[in-house]
Amino acid sequence: MERKGLHVAVVGATGAVGQQMIQTLENRKFPVETLTLLSSERSAGKKVVFKGQEIEVQVAKPESFAGVDIALFSAGGAVSKALAPEAVKRGAIVVDNTSAFRMDENVPLVVPEVNESDLTWHNGIIANPNCSTIQMVVALEPIRQAFGLKKVIVSTYQAVSGAGSQAIEELKTQAKAILAGESFTPEILPVKSERKHYQIAFNAIPQIDKFQENGFTFEEMKMINETKKIMHMPELEVAATCVRIPVMTGHSESVYIEVEKEGISAEQIKRVLKEAPGVVLQDDPADQLYPMPADCVGKNDVFVGRIRKDLDRDNAFHLWIVSDNLLKGAAWNSVQIAESLLKLGLVNL
Amino acid sequence: MERKGLHVAVVGATGAVGQQMIQTLENRKFPVETLTLLSSERSAGKKVVFKGQEIEVQVAKPESFAGVDIALFSAGGAVSKALAPEAVKRGAIVVDNTSAFRMDENVPLVVPEVNESDLTWHNGIIANPNCSTIQMVVALEPIRQAFGLKKVIVSTYQAVSGAGSQAIEELKTQAKAILAGESFTPEILPVKSERKHYQIAFNAIPQIDKFQENGFTFEEMKMINETKKIMHMPELEVAATCVRIPVMTGHSESVYIEVEKEGISAEQIKRVLKEAPGVVLQDDPADQLYPMPADCVGKNDVFVGRIRKDLDRDNAFHLWIVSDNLLKGAAWNSVQIAESLLKLGLVNL
Repeated sequence: MERKGLHVAVVGATGAVGQQMIQTLENRKFPVETLTLLSSERSAGKKVVFKGQEIEVQVAKPESFAGVDIALFSAGGAVSKALAPEAVKRGAIVVDNTSAFRMDENVPLVVPEVNESDLTWHNGIIANPNCSTIQMVVALEPIRQAFGLKKVIVSTYQAVSGAGSQAIEELKTQAKAILAGESFTPEILPVKSERKHYQIAFNAIPQIDKFQENGFTFEEMKMINETKKIMHMPELEVAATCVRIPVMTGHSESVYIEVEKEGISAEQIKRVLKEAPGVVLQDDPADQLYPMPADCVGKNDVFVGRIRKDLDRDNAFHLWIVSDNLLKGAAWNSVQIAESLLKLGLVNL
Repeated sequence: MERKGLHVAVVGATGAVGQQMIQTLENRKFPVETLTLLSSERSAGKKVVFKGQEIEVQVAKPESFAGVDIALFSAGGAVSKALAPEAVKRGAIVVDNTSAFRMDENVPLVVPEVNESDLTWHNGIIANPNCSTIQMVVALEPIRQAFGLKKVIVSTYQAVSGAGSQAIEELKTQAKAILAGESFTPEILPVKSERKHYQIAFNAIPQIDKFQENGFTFEEMKMINETKKIMHMPELEVAATCVRIPVMTGHSESVYIEVEKEGISAEQIKRVLKEAPGVVLQDDPADQLYPMPADCVGKNDVFVGRIRKDLDRDNAFHLWIVSDNLLKGAAWNSVQIAESLLKLGLVNL
């Protein structure tokens, strides 16, 4: 007998991404019969409205996942490592928004516009890529399909909401203090658990996540490694510099690419992007039309503009890619994976 | 008979850069005997303090330059085009901070750390490069000297003060309005004379100056063409994407370079930059040390950090370059050119 809907759990339900996940499930009319909202002890007991009904957030524990079909995790890597296998054990499919399982070769790392078919070989856990990676590969995959792809160099302009609700508050509080000529003490950014914290209001911080031995940050290495995995291109040259700027929501990326084919024009790149799934082309210099983070908030699409052919290399191009990091970069991509699981018959009503 | 000092004129004395020029002349103890402050009719009559004395700003006209030894221009391209030749006719050497003469082959384009000797063939006018270009070439020239340079790709994170005092006010006003939940109307950025204006507070605008036919902005083409001219490398591959971010003062740049020599390490690049004139190396990931615009304000140096060897190409590196766009990017480079003119005997006490 067909059910009316699925039993969905959201882990990290009170966080910046969790809230967007719940909203996105409602907006997309995802067939939810039961919604279980889970969090740490600290946030348990809060009430969240879903489709007009109040749902109380409960403490996440192994038993919480009994009967759950799909569990969307966004409560930090440690929670995912501890509880995702417990959810799988109880029959749930986990869509994990943390970096805990992304590079695990038994776990597909999925952006539906790019590699939806990787969902078919999942073993219970599906990883949602890093926000900066998702919006970039959505724009690069149609170019790769049409013209091949050899090299990517990206510099990011990342919003503070990528670091959570506390970082949004910190930006607001600091900006107010600076405009009022008052003092303040940075406490959250660039990385809460790091020893040093820096001003983000009216500043730019070239550190997102901690540093690795090779001088790149983990955020930069996520973009590099995840792009290769999602696009099935271990040989692709990718380099990233990740920078936090004083924007609440909406990541921007300045991207240089080299394609395989020679003789391609910027017009041909634009034509491909115009037809690409999940992409909105915003590129008309004569009308000052280009994507900006302030315009992308609340939208599921990836916006691309400033497309130019390089002046020196025939096969090189420059792009400017913007998207809502909480939606396509996190909540929407996770719900979209859930929609794909239904569509592909990997989960059934 | 040796004079006590020179007769210096500052054109655009009440602007963001002009004010910094006057302050820099004082801070550097530049030998000024007479300081003539000039502006448009709108700002004439204002009084500016120099070395404890009030000087009244006068309307700039051809006769204003009688007896002037060095005239520092920063009042827009149209003013420079009209009055710089008049100043030269009256015997002054002009250091022009606008783009009016930069690509004129009879005009040297000078960053003293890079090409001071180009001052010797001046014909009355010396051009001060674009702010974004200056800080980049100060960091790249010592690398070029040591290891050769083939390719540069830069993405900028530019402060609003590069667009003048009105843009600083606009950022503050907008930020206050947004934090208070009030409405506002963008009027200055990205380009005052353009048809459309966009929010800069908590946003990023990928347009600085107007667009050219080829899809690049004039700002981007300035970085490309000026870098080649200053470094005497017409064959250098340079590409730029210029972006305005909500920072008052201090431009940041994410720069990818390919050097000629193979087998160079990031340590070797750091060692070269540590000894380079005008450069301060701030690069210690273990101590979260890297340059940020909020730290560079009021300083003459160019700060470089986040130096990493590319993971794919042996001869490629990534750098993060930050400097005060009103100082090394404008006022300090202009006064530094004046100091070089004295040092080289091209102007005499």
